Amino acid sequence: MPAPSLTPAPTLSAEELAARRDQAQRDYDAFVARGLSLDLTRGKPSPEQLDLASGLLAVQLDHDYRAADGTDTRNYGGLNGLVELRAIFADALQVPVAQLVAANNSSLAVMHDCLVHALLSALPGSEGRWVDEPIAFLCPVPGYDRHFALCERFGIEMIAVPLTFDGPDMDVVESLVAGDPRIRGIWCVPKHSNPDGTCYSDETVGRLAAMPTAAGDFRIFWDNAYAVHDLVDKRVEIADLLAACAAAGNPDRAFVFGSTSKITLAGAGVAFFGASPANVAWYLGHTAKRTIGPDKLNQLRHVRFLRDRAGLDAHMAAHRALIAPKFAAVERILIEQLGGTGLATWSTPKGGYFVSLNVPAGCAAAVVKRAAEAGVALTPAGSTHPYGNDPDDRTIRLAPTFPSQEDLELAMAGVATCVRLVGFEQLLGK
Amino acid sequence: MPAPSLTPAPTLSAEELAARRDQAQRDYDAFVARGLSLDLTRGKPSPEQLDLASGLLAVQLDHDYRAADGTDTRNYGGLNGLVELRAIFADALQVPVAQLVAANNSSLAVMHDCLVHALLSALPGSEGRWVDEPIAFLCPVPGYDRHFALCERFGIEMIAVPLTFDGPDMDVVESLVAGDPRIRGIWCVPKHSNPDGTCYSDETVGRLAAMPTAAGDFRIFWDNAYAVHDLVDKRVEIADLLAACAAAGNPDRAFVFGSTSKITLAGAGVAFFGASPANVAWYLGHTAKRTIGPDKLNQLRHVRFLRDRAGLDAHMAAHRALIAPKFAAVERILIEQLGGTGLATWSTPKGGYFVSLNVPAGCAAAVVKRAAEAGVALTPAGSTHPYGNDPDDRTIRLAPTFPSQEDLELAMAGVATCVRLVGFEQLLGK
Repeated sequence: MPAPSLTPAPTLSAEELAARRDQAQRDYDAFVARGLSLDLTRGKPSPEQLDLASGLLAVQLDHDYRAADGTDTRNYGGLNGLVELRAIFADALQVPVAQLVAANNSSLAVMHDCLVHALLSALPGSEGRWVDEPIAFLCPVPGYDRHFALCERFGIEMIAVPLTFDGPDMDVVESLVAGDPRIRGIWCVPKHSNPDGTCYSDETVGRLAAMPTAAGDFRIFWDNAYAVHDLVDKRVEIADLLAACAAAGNPDRAFVFGSTSKITLAGAGVAFFGASPANVAWYLGHTAKRTIGPDKLNQLRHVRFLRDRAGLDAHMAAHRALIAPKFAAVERILIEQLGGTGLATWSTPKGGYFVSLNVPAGCAAAVVKRAAEAGVALTPAGSTHPYGNDPDDRTIRLAPTFPSQEDLELAMAGVATCVRLVGFEQLLGK
Repeated sequence: MPAPSLTPAPTLSAEELAARRDQAQRDYDAFVARGLSLDLTRGKPSPEQLDLASGLLAVQLDHDYRAADGTDTRNYGGLNGLVELRAIFADALQVPVAQLVAANNSSLAVMHDCLVHALLSALPGSEGRWVDEPIAFLCPVPGYDRHFALCERFGIEMIAVPLTFDGPDMDVVESLVAGDPRIRGIWCVPKHSNPDGTCYSDETVGRLAAMPTAAGDFRIFWDNAYAVHDLVDKRVEIADLLAACAAAGNPDRAFVFGSTSKITLAGAGVAFFGASPANVAWYLGHTAKRTIGPDKLNQLRHVRFLRDRAGLDAHMAAHRALIAPKFAAVERILIEQLGGTGLATWSTPKGGYFVSLNVPAGCAAAVVKRAAEAGVALTPAGSTHPYGNDPDDRTIRLAPTFPSQEDLELAMAGVATCVRLVGFEQLLGK
């Protein structure tokens, strides 16, 4: 999405530009001289955030391993996952409990498996297997690199569509899906999107649910990764895609994904899948061939630890208290160093894990390279776009959560310095 | 495999047969009248076996979540799994630690994913994706129904080959794989096979490793599910397939699978994958697209609980103490009721989870049906064969571990009664 232009480009003389470039070079040299090693690459929770879930690791199940329905969670079975855990998350993920599946520790894995099952077996509504014909997915950009990696790995053509403040540009989306039967899906992170922090408008959700598609088996891969990850007082609400699809007569269009990776523990959370009854039956039918069931004990630990929706909300408030200062620091440093330079715009997300930093066209890769040389690792430029190709070379994804506050502020100062250096160099035609 | 004929068929007059049939009918009626509901269908550990791992569920990691190398196991990452856990299992699974991957809770899932990756991407040594051409797997019979279900689900043709006392009939196997390039794999449970309890001989392992195959990407799916599940004092040792394949110049031929599902907890164990370095790189390369890593906390719990190989062996001895009496009861009841009748042979496994009961051709489905009508659930007849088709209709899989000793003995008495009833009825031409 075109980030707000916080920094109208000033008109500077060549001399003024050279002076600023020289100052940036001095700042950069000083930064390099510090010999730092900092990492802003991935959206990982910090150790302090993980500490919030220490109660989860203290849950002892040796004498209390029965689920609400009496199931011995230690043994095989229970492909749907524990109903009491699904009940805690049903409202947040906007999926009825009966249509929500709780799986193992990775929602990415569930997305992967949905693609695999669709490739190797017909989906409800499909005329055949996806593997037997060329297919394509729409990819709102900037977007999540691991979504794109799945498409690339399976030979699914990716078609970029612009992300607006309200979600994907629906005029473009509607036109594409109406005319091209190869297009079988779209990747969406509908709330606090990665990396722009976009929250889809109700109109966008309604249009996604109702739009005519040339493909009879079109699916919205609705990765609601940040469903409860607000950084503002008033919870951000998005429209209920699953209900909208059903209301529009397209009940099987939505695949909803979520996880507790950024709620409890990044490596040992629980992933969720929600969809229409027909889709859930399809998913579970294939999943039953793959496994006898998920780790129900970890699900039970989550139930004991989070207790209910109120417990979940309280837990997320504790996360917010830890990470909101980090997002604030990113914004403050960007304003301080880049405000008024005309060299950058950035997102100001109301939640999620990322900030998008937009630099002048042709500068993103150079900024990332300069930052790396100064000891600050950034996500590779282009990773927010299909095939790693940001055609304008302008989007940089910042992940502020993992480093300490001090390291983050250091790293951001370095990044901003790199933007000034690369930006003024470009303006000077060097 | 042809079970030992413990019960040479006697020569009986029609009158004698009718008397025995009538006795069986009376016994059966009495059994039905008890209105039991017993289940011998699946190889599940009993609650008492799961209790052996109660220490695993009591492990508290809230203040001690670091792996041996300092990794914070709560966060993302670590696709190979914890090295200290792999070290505990490397010897038992006959895979060098560096070539062993520790995953989530299901080895079936790892097998599934190996098939998926081979279907959708070329294997080391492959000329193309398996999905693009008709392929086939050899299935030693009787075998494991979930292996067959994977092949069926992916449209992989299954070719049954007989299991002998030494493993698959290698003359048949060698002849098939040498002549048919469609044959890309073979399913093997090399130790205490499901359901016959067969342990592959060293010669079998050597021939599997060395045999010429028409397909350049032939794989042995070596499901060593019962690697440490001995029921006898002297540990059963099988030859090292991975080493044999490397020695024979076929280093990439073996895919080794294992899990702790029947060691610690059936629903919350750790699965393993072992293979050549090229295969492991291939597997991890594709797995990296699917997930950011396995549940390392559960792996760490396993390390803390099992400690080392000696701890593993002590734990398995405790299992043996619980389940050996069940296997003994099965054998005792079969001998008591069916010995000398000529109606059955059965396996006497040295480990694993199953007993094969072989009845006269054409009788297995009828026995299972009669048992169900009397309240004893058995695995469906035919499930030990590809496509659920036991051409002789003679193999019944018994799973003695889950029921209590009392229930098991009751159920087995009922099963034996059903065999007598159906068998004598058949001999009488009824």
